[in-house]
Amino acid sequence: MIHGGDVYTDGILKGKELIDYSSNINPLGVPQGFKENILKALDALTRYPDIKYRSLKEDLANYNNINKEYFILGNGAAEIIDLTISQEQSILIIAPSFGEYECSARKNNCRIIYSYLRETYIENIGYTLDYDYEDIMNKTKEVDAIVIGNPNNPNGEIIKKDKFIEILSYCNDNKKRVIIDEAFIEFIGDMSKSLINYTEKYSCLVIIRALTKFYAMPGIRFGYGICSDKKYLEEIRKKQLPWNINTFAEFAVSEVLRDSDYINKSIKWIKEERKFFLAELKKIELFEKVYETSGNFVLCKLKNLSDEKLYELTLQRGLLVRKCGSYEGLNNRYIRLAIKDRELNLKVLQIFKSIEGEV
Amino acid sequence: MIHGGDVYTDGILKGKELIDYSSNINPLGVPQGFKENILKALDALTRYPDIKYRSLKEDLANYNNINKEYFILGNGAAEIIDLTISQEQSILIIAPSFGEYECSARKNNCRIIYSYLRETYIENIGYTLDYDYEDIMNKTKEVDAIVIGNPNNPNGEIIKKDKFIEILSYCNDNKKRVIIDEAFIEFIGDMSKSLINYTEKYSCLVIIRALTKFYAMPGIRFGYGICSDKKYLEEIRKKQLPWNINTFAEFAVSEVLRDSDYINKSIKWIKEERKFFLAELKKIELFEKVYETSGNFVLCKLKNLSDEKLYELTLQRGLLVRKCGSYEGLNNRYIRLAIKDRELNLKVLQIFKSIEGEV
Repeated sequence: MIHGGDVYTDGILKGKELIDYSSNINPLGVPQGFKENILKALDALTRYPDIKYRSLKEDLANYNNINKEYFILGNGAAEIIDLTISQEQSILIIAPSFGEYECSARKNNCRIIYSYLRETYIENIGYTLDYDYEDIMNKTKEVDAIVIGNPNNPNGEIIKKDKFIEILSYCNDNKKRVIIDEAFIEFIGDMSKSLINYTEKYSCLVIIRALTKFYAMPGIRFGYGICSDKKYLEEIRKKQLPWNINTFAEFAVSEVLRDSDYINKSIKWIKEERKFFLAELKKIELFEKVYETSGNFVLCKLKNLSDEKLYELTLQRGLLVRKCGSYEGLNNRYIRLAIKDRELNLKVLQIFKSIEGEV
Repeated sequence: MIHGGDVYTDGILKGKELIDYSSNINPLGVPQGFKENILKALDALTRYPDIKYRSLKEDLANYNNINKEYFILGNGAAEIIDLTISQEQSILIIAPSFGEYECSARKNNCRIIYSYLRETYIENIGYTLDYDYEDIMNKTKEVDAIVIGNPNNPNGEIIKKDKFIEILSYCNDNKKRVIIDEAFIEFIGDMSKSLINYTEKYSCLVIIRALTKFYAMPGIRFGYGICSDKKYLEEIRKKQLPWNINTFAEFAVSEVLRDSDYINKSIKWIKEERKFFLAELKKIELFEKVYETSGNFVLCKLKNLSDEKLYELTLQRGLLVRKCGSYEGLNNRYIRLAIKDRELNLKVLQIFKSIEGEV
């Protein structure tokens, strides 16, 4: 299991509907504005998208308040991850983190070094898995680039700017690339946690964003990168296919980014439910540890059973969880859960309680 | 100008609506069945597509009556073109042909050799630009692979199977890849002209198809390849990104391929209009030669003016044509025109007549 979100193998293709807690999608669903204006996109479908995606880039520039020339567009954030990693000979990857970093590195014959997250117990807060900034700094010297999630998947920790700035500055001075994956940044509920505003000063920095998770449309395939090093962007753009962004994605960007009602509702939801779901999960006997998170997902360490066993038990009850045995730095004692709306979160808690009685 | 279909630079972005004869899209528009069922796709948008695209491949297998394991899916036919060419060290390209073959070859450091089309005048028919089968056979010996359009873009000539089979057989015996781009095959109006049924016998053969042109949805980004060499497919699949096909494309395939009403209407249209438009174009004094075509586009040689000059003159009248100066094997005396419905074709003929009086 390299990816979550496979509701097909054990679900749809067997005629079963599953509650999917293995992929981290906003439960508020596709923004209404996009749905209502879908016919406009249908009209545009018969012509090729603008090969330069000019108005799309302007929408992104306005939303992020960043120079439109700093953008590179991808068929999903996965394309930007792959393009950036394909440029490097060696890379430092945080472990555990999103499996696509390793897939891209291997595919592109890029050597991997890991920096492992450090577990800490903080009184009155709980368990955290934090970046080891000192270790990252030391290991960065041995590689061409580093890739790091903000927040990091699967644990949801965010970058502390005051600790990271030294690494960023070192990389900029020594021509090492810093790739920060902010695919889940909106779920923090505080955009000041983003490092996007450092792109102007640090040309080594590439920020990667996705539209798919926060706006609940992973099927639309759209992600983007931001970097002030125009020569670098030119180089990686050469590797891209013409018309890599489809009309619906082009159209969605113009609709959803300005949907402040959806954004506000989503932030209200995630702040409430993250607090509630974490507190309730900590009461479940199946879990030895429930890690603090700033994302819309939560990493849990299992007490007495394997991820495989729990997967089977929840699947019998119609729930899909993310086994974490495939993550470098974790083992088969971890699962990741999405955070959804109250009704589903309660249902999922109920499922765990029913399993407690059985194991 | 490497690609047609740019209605943005001189049109939309300047607030002008243009008649686009530079890209070759079915004028019947997006099939009704797709439009009517778009809400189903919206529902599916909130989950990731099946990473293995299992039911999508089954739909394609049924439509083409080909083993479902022979398929590889792309974010547009452009992705399949790029993947196949990226596997080769040297390639034979027909000139003129679709510019993406050369772009991909250059991007992947693949050496290019050209085989030029041969102009022939056939009594009672007219000018044709045909493949030079003998030259192709000879030059094939010097390369790893050949890529050839069926029908070929920009002229619309199709492969004569009895002449090509020797080349195909030679390539199969000598482990050379044969890539046939059938992106416009449906417009011939006779699917027996496809070489798809040779894929089983000749494992060197890769057929490339698109959904975007015949079903009038270039914005949806979907193409596919067919090859019986499973080991080869495995190898090129490794280069692909996860979830490279978006939900709308996945959904469109299941809707449009079985839309026999749309298919029949389209074939009736193209057969009538191709005949009509060609006959009328031959009467226009601006053109020295109008080449026979089996596609939904037609290559014309200009008599006394450059493609740049004609482009300016038609643009002033709201019409976008495809300049052909960028094609290897052509020069600035050629343009390519789409074939559309009677109303538009008449309008375009009228525009040419008005220009005749001016130059």
